[in-house]
Amino acid sequence: MAHAVKFERRASSSATEAAIAAISALIGDRLTLSQAVRDLHGRDESFHPSHAPDAVAFAKSTEEVSAIVKICAEHGVPIIPFGTGTSLEGHVAALEGGITVDVSQMNEVLRVSPDDMDVTVQAGVTRKQLNEYIRDTGLFFPIDPGADASLGGMSATRASGTNAVRYGTMRENVLALTVVLADGRIIRTSKRARKSSAGYDLTRLFVGSEGTLGIITEVTVRLYGQPEAVSAAVVAFESIEGAVRTCIETIQSGIPVARVELLDDIQMHAINLYSKLDYKVAPTLFFEFHGTDASVAEQAERVRDLAEGNGGGEFVWATKPEDRTKLWSARHSAYYAGLALRPGCKGMATDVCVPISRLVDCISETKDDLKQSPIQATLVGHVGDGNFHLCFLLNPDDPAEIAEAERLHERLVLRAISMDGTCTGEHGVGYGKMQFLAAEHGEAVAVMRQIKKALDPDNILNPGKIVRP
Amino acid sequence: MAHAVKFERRASSSATEAAIAAISALIGDRLTLSQAVRDLHGRDESFHPSHAPDAVAFAKSTEEVSAIVKICAEHGVPIIPFGTGTSLEGHVAALEGGITVDVSQMNEVLRVSPDDMDVTVQAGVTRKQLNEYIRDTGLFFPIDPGADASLGGMSATRASGTNAVRYGTMRENVLALTVVLADGRIIRTSKRARKSSAGYDLTRLFVGSEGTLGIITEVTVRLYGQPEAVSAAVVAFESIEGAVRTCIETIQSGIPVARVELLDDIQMHAINLYSKLDYKVAPTLFFEFHGTDASVAEQAERVRDLAEGNGGGEFVWATKPEDRTKLWSARHSAYYAGLALRPGCKGMATDVCVPISRLVDCISETKDDLKQSPIQATLVGHVGDGNFHLCFLLNPDDPAEIAEAERLHERLVLRAISMDGTCTGEHGVGYGKMQFLAAEHGEAVAVMRQIKKALDPDNILNPGKIVRP
Repeated sequence: MAHAVKFERRASSSATEAAIAAISALIGDRLTLSQAVRDLHGRDESFHPSHAPDAVAFAKSTEEVSAIVKICAEHGVPIIPFGTGTSLEGHVAALEGGITVDVSQMNEVLRVSPDDMDVTVQAGVTRKQLNEYIRDTGLFFPIDPGADASLGGMSATRASGTNAVRYGTMRENVLALTVVLADGRIIRTSKRARKSSAGYDLTRLFVGSEGTLGIITEVTVRLYGQPEAVSAAVVAFESIEGAVRTCIETIQSGIPVARVELLDDIQMHAINLYSKLDYKVAPTLFFEFHGTDASVAEQAERVRDLAEGNGGGEFVWATKPEDRTKLWSARHSAYYAGLALRPGCKGMATDVCVPISRLVDCISETKDDLKQSPIQATLVGHVGDGNFHLCFLLNPDDPAEIAEAERLHERLVLRAISMDGTCTGEHGVGYGKMQFLAAEHGEAVAVMRQIKKALDPDNILNPGKIVRP
Repeated sequence: MAHAVKFERRASSSATEAAIAAISALIGDRLTLSQAVRDLHGRDESFHPSHAPDAVAFAKSTEEVSAIVKICAEHGVPIIPFGTGTSLEGHVAALEGGITVDVSQMNEVLRVSPDDMDVTVQAGVTRKQLNEYIRDTGLFFPIDPGADASLGGMSATRASGTNAVRYGTMRENVLALTVVLADGRIIRTSKRARKSSAGYDLTRLFVGSEGTLGIITEVTVRLYGQPEAVSAAVVAFESIEGAVRTCIETIQSGIPVARVELLDDIQMHAINLYSKLDYKVAPTLFFEFHGTDASVAEQAERVRDLAEGNGGGEFVWATKPEDRTKLWSARHSAYYAGLALRPGCKGMATDVCVPISRLVDCISETKDDLKQSPIQATLVGHVGDGNFHLCFLLNPDDPAEIAEAERLHERLVLRAISMDGTCTGEHGVGYGKMQFLAAEHGEAVAVMRQIKKALDPDNILNPGKIVRP
């Protein structure tokens, strides 16, 4: 289904076999040739087809990853890093064969500093595991892409999510990385100081590089104090314009809203059905406020005033933790709720991000496209960032539907780019969005290619993703 | 004075003359050979000696910069970008001769979007000029390195300053750059979306690259709403420990303090003398709070409680704008106040940044060093970030004093690095701190070198800074 780009296997059978034998000698039965395990590692959560690697190596340490990379480099065999497999643009597909390095057994929290409000973990630690581990420190790690992804994968894909509007994305929250380079060398991209002007920003270069420049094995991230008070609210609007306008005014007023999510009428209908709720079926904002009791109350009151001025209805509050959990569970189930609208369908999810002044235009034109098409899709947005997701609900066995979804998808992406936006706000490029990079970046893609060639001259690191050298 | 690294002129006289003739044909009398102008462009505000370029070209547009770079590339002549010359590690010195491209006449604000809270400017626009221009929009640009630097220079050096603790540094606030590459190609590093996962983060690669990978000609930055209420306060402590502890607790509590500056007893003495004030001569914190009336009052009250628990004295408030101006003028005059302690002396300023948990140790050991030395120095810190500055007050004609300052400086930098900190939090590398990069980054310096070679194979962009290929 979709994007049936054909690739050739890279290494000869004998080179691949030699690499497998050498890695096997190194890590024993943590290297597996099992077809089931390989298939599982060739796909992520997207609609992109699976491309299984030749073998999967479960690494335990940075040094092991380095040794595996050296073996692969020697034999010219591709290496694909793998965290939890929750990426959305085919990032983990072994398009040219090779060895997948699974870091899920590298799941130790290496160091926590409550005073510095930072932590260093192995790449396989997931965000929920991390938050469980540090709960007693009074700190938390805010980035929440929905899935319980690994910190290594979240760094590699520059993940963000619902509360990026307040806490930023992985771009802002990674302090340092340990990276294994294409020749097996190990580097640390930075010390732990909160800021530094000491040379090129290698941390930010590897954040979002999707395993194509190096394999991330350790991650140091910022933490935040758990808010004293949290409250959440849901408010329906007469129009999407009113909802987005409220969001713009909220941010302009400097109100430090922690989350502000837009769901369209179809998505609200889906959530009501799926989660047995009775929200109004209309464009709706979900808010969350963090702070002291007094500041949360003040923030909420100010936002309510702004919403009222933009055609917002009644605020439905969730101040008790269990009510908030219910509210955000409903929000997080948006994808599955959408799928339930059409039993047996498959979701083709995409995301774009535009300057917020263009968000209403971008969403309206997209919904007009959808109205004129037989395809159904749900829309949710991290609207404070200008980022929204569309999920096409498709019959996977109907090529005409898939072709129509691809047509609408391409129009959406080019529309976002024409509005000075990006082809992906948070899902990444993988191999699903490579064809849009030139439209977005022009000549800058050549610079990306120069960097790829400089750091991975033999193109063995996750080949076929982001740029082809 | 200091760092007398010897460099050879790069290009032959005839090559340089040919480049000068071609640029002159392009921009007429905006190319100058005047010795006075060249001398002025060979030095910044640091103690590093001047290295004048062979000529200075005043460019008016990105296209002109591109044409100049193409000419220099053709003749193998170095190019050094120049904004306001307020850098602090010799960034603008023409160490190998060549042409300085001065962007100060590229001073147009190209586009303001109040809804998106961002702005695009030519590289020569200064931060004060920008804030003047956008005042009526209710927005402001917060990054304040002290000097009225150009946005191009601030991007190139990854500048920050007093309110980075709340608003971040140039790393967090640059959305996109227009850059002229070593062969004259022009790229835009990103669209204007608040976040993107579309490929390598070229924006962050060029932020902090100090003109060694490309010449920044246009800058898009984030803006913020002018706070409704602002208040500031000064509080003296019995010990530096108590002051730093207060700062750590403030940040851990999630209090969104806008500024928190530490000044040591010597610096307070200097400020009292220089600005005719009567602050207590003790380790002191200067605070500023931004928000609504209610939230500013709440923030201040909470910080006062924390300070009290850590040996802090009375809060001296500055709520009226004129009182705040007086307070921050005193803070910003710290450098000159220090110099006035020793008439005729020259300041040798440096900065380091460490994880905040190590700040007390780093400062205490540094002050112990100073106590055992005849050299005097003042200390101020952006303590919320773990960043502090030391300014040695030196007789520029006494080689023994200079050698002693260099010894203490090296001990300071290596101490910061050993504490998982950086050799420079905000001043940059230039040629003054190149010798410390290997101690800080190890093998990662080789990666920086690979990137430099890939993007500037002939090493014509600001050679002799950050890394030597």
